[in-house]
Amino acid sequence: MSTIKILKGRWVLTMAPGAPVLERHAVVLEGERIAAVLPWDEAEARYPAAERVELGQHVLIPGLINGHTHSAMSLLRGVADDLALMDWLNNHIWPLEKKWVSEDWTYQGSLLSAAEALRGGVTYLNDMYFFPTAMARAALDSGIRAGVSINVIDFPTGYASGPDDYIAKGLAAYEQFKGEALLDWTSAPHAPYTVSDETFVKLRQLAEQHELQMHCHIHETQFEVDESVKQFGMRPLERLNKLGLLNERMMAVHMVHLTEAEIEMLAAQKVHLVHNPNSNLKLASGVQPLKALEAAGVNTILGTDGAASNNRQDMFGEIRAAALLAKGVTGDPLTVSARTALEMATIRAAKAMGREADLGSLEPGKLADVVAVSLDALECRPVYHADAQLVYVAGREHVSDVWVGGRQLLKQRELTSIDVSALLERSEAIVERMKTER
Amino acid sequence: MSTIKILKGRWVLTMAPGAPVLERHAVVLEGERIAAVLPWDEAEARYPAAERVELGQHVLIPGLINGHTHSAMSLLRGVADDLALMDWLNNHIWPLEKKWVSEDWTYQGSLLSAAEALRGGVTYLNDMYFFPTAMARAALDSGIRAGVSINVIDFPTGYASGPDDYIAKGLAAYEQFKGEALLDWTSAPHAPYTVSDETFVKLRQLAEQHELQMHCHIHETQFEVDESVKQFGMRPLERLNKLGLLNERMMAVHMVHLTEAEIEMLAAQKVHLVHNPNSNLKLASGVQPLKALEAAGVNTILGTDGAASNNRQDMFGEIRAAALLAKGVTGDPLTVSARTALEMATIRAAKAMGREADLGSLEPGKLADVVAVSLDALECRPVYHADAQLVYVAGREHVSDVWVGGRQLLKQRELTSIDVSALLERSEAIVERMKTER
Repeated sequence: MSTIKILKGRWVLTMAPGAPVLERHAVVLEGERIAAVLPWDEAEARYPAAERVELGQHVLIPGLINGHTHSAMSLLRGVADDLALMDWLNNHIWPLEKKWVSEDWTYQGSLLSAAEALRGGVTYLNDMYFFPTAMARAALDSGIRAGVSINVIDFPTGYASGPDDYIAKGLAAYEQFKGEALLDWTSAPHAPYTVSDETFVKLRQLAEQHELQMHCHIHETQFEVDESVKQFGMRPLERLNKLGLLNERMMAVHMVHLTEAEIEMLAAQKVHLVHNPNSNLKLASGVQPLKALEAAGVNTILGTDGAASNNRQDMFGEIRAAALLAKGVTGDPLTVSARTALEMATIRAAKAMGREADLGSLEPGKLADVVAVSLDALECRPVYHADAQLVYVAGREHVSDVWVGGRQLLKQRELTSIDVSALLERSEAIVERMKTER
Repeated sequence: MSTIKILKGRWVLTMAPGAPVLERHAVVLEGERIAAVLPWDEAEARYPAAERVELGQHVLIPGLINGHTHSAMSLLRGVADDLALMDWLNNHIWPLEKKWVSEDWTYQGSLLSAAEALRGGVTYLNDMYFFPTAMARAALDSGIRAGVSINVIDFPTGYASGPDDYIAKGLAAYEQFKGEALLDWTSAPHAPYTVSDETFVKLRQLAEQHELQMHCHIHETQFEVDESVKQFGMRPLERLNKLGLLNERMMAVHMVHLTEAEIEMLAAQKVHLVHNPNSNLKLASGVQPLKALEAAGVNTILGTDGAASNNRQDMFGEIRAAALLAKGVTGDPLTVSARTALEMATIRAAKAMGREADLGSLEPGKLADVVAVSLDALECRPVYHADAQLVYVAGREHVSDVWVGGRQLLKQRELTSIDVSALLERSEAIVERMKTER
């Protein structure tokens, strides 16, 4: 018999389509899955022997899904800010990565990000980085879910020598960890400006063969679009469309610069978009036309991007920014409601990852990825509407408890699976070396 | 003899012009003022008998100044979100205010906001609301500094019957509390669309007579600007300029919609601007042209606006939003650096309030309004640059200790001057009545 736990929330926001905020409801966990969502008394009557967890000031929500990040880059958090993009990349980020990135470096940074994610209510990191075995190990060691990337870039790095080497290493990692329930894998060409047509097609075929989602930076900057027109005679999206990549397998990240015709095409072809509002602002890339994407019915989800361009890996911050920014830049206060922004980090994100059957909402039969957010602090009072309160008031600091697949990974803000002082000791040692030897 | 305290910060960011991040420095407090900023060993040698406060993982900064809020509106936090401005005002906020706002209601809401402010590193609330005696009492009872408003609106409310009544009541409050060191007073016409020319001139004269700063919402929405053109044949700024209001006494709040000529005029006439980035986004008012204002040399500072339009009264959030938003909407990653955004909430804000001699930086002789921000949490690691870390990484949840005029009001995140459970009990009772009788 699996252990049964009754999580008694003051409010439960299941994120099932159209579901209201439930008051004084319990999410019942049976092993790794959700058995029921019921009023407190019914749950206690039906499961009299179950363990009860009292969360009387809390909202229970599905675990948040970070749709795009480079987890290992937490080690470069704040190394270079307030710079022009090419100066930042060419003179800071890429030289540091070239010199330092290794399997161990990637593991330590990824574990630091897993710890930050769990403390912020994130139960799934859709990652893109080198050394996927390191991300896979960090996820398994911490207990967080991850989308691990078979990442390819056409130039050599400390990880691989060229496209075939990246693919071979990525596939080897995939084969090594295939079957791990916490891991999904993505076929992940870096971007149109770093990957050739030939490599794009290989990665598309790889995704089809292994039934993987794809994960790619697209239309992040106007510069990228302009350069593609010069080099290929067409915009990146048109090029990728000709290569057969724009369909429901694709998670297209950033997508800041879009025409109306492109938006229609994305909707028609069921491409998933990942919006990174704070990273796009910080790097001065622009603002994604989210209102227009919503009107067209595109499935847009949310991500933080890596800690070098979004130093705060905070999905509550992205949810709030998505809701606020869309209103401010369009003059329409009715666009991207609090509920819509929450969907973008939960049920819609599960759909983009191809995991809608298991993740993204608190419904019987789904995996028990549950987050408790306390609204007890004076900053969170009064509470008129618990759903809007999560978006416009609460922050990741109010996350108290987190379960992933029924396993409690955060308990009253303490991580249960990660030795934090050992983690910090190791990561600080790496950073001290980087500071003194740069 | 005054008590001497040595606050030993891992980093000290004095916010004095051009000052670097100081490492392992102490801020020495003598009574209500700062006596010195020195390296740890020098401070201990010079003041051997002083009390030492070890803040070995912390950045010490000047207390943050919230340049614009309606403190009492914390009681309306989240009452109505995701609505069009006029629907929000006419059908939600104004009817609720009309029915409920009283001296006691205003006091309870203001005290709740004072508590939230102090826990978020804010030591000064520049407030605008009815019943200024209530804000004054909430500030004195909590120990926070406040700019209290002699607030005037041309139509009757539960507070006053018409402009002369508002002015009489505001002046009576001013006379009652004049001389309280924690309080400044502002002459505060609500906005060009709610105040007549005659009242504007009276409030200008009142400000001149009593040497007060002025505090007014201006050019918040395009609708306001268009209506003024219809009604007065000119934009609000031109009208206020003709009335003699645009000078270094004026703190002009919002200022979203501005022409180049207006920006030049604001700079030439030394008007202070208060930027409320998150409120302007949430109400879909637009985005203030901060880059252009910076280029022109306008003294722009930051505020949250009230909790009904910015449910999270979080100056760390405003600082971050100001730095990010200016970059994203202009495509210029070099505009509004982390340091500039911090100045907007400290030294520049003190200048706007006319309090530059006493507030806004950690310099000998100034009042000891000091905030300690811990960078110890794993979310704040590693630390490459403590100043950028405060803006792009840390949040108000990392504020550990706060002193106002040398008096410690927050100690390891616990408020020392406010009985939080009594405060919450009283405010929840008010909110329950509002919910059941609306």
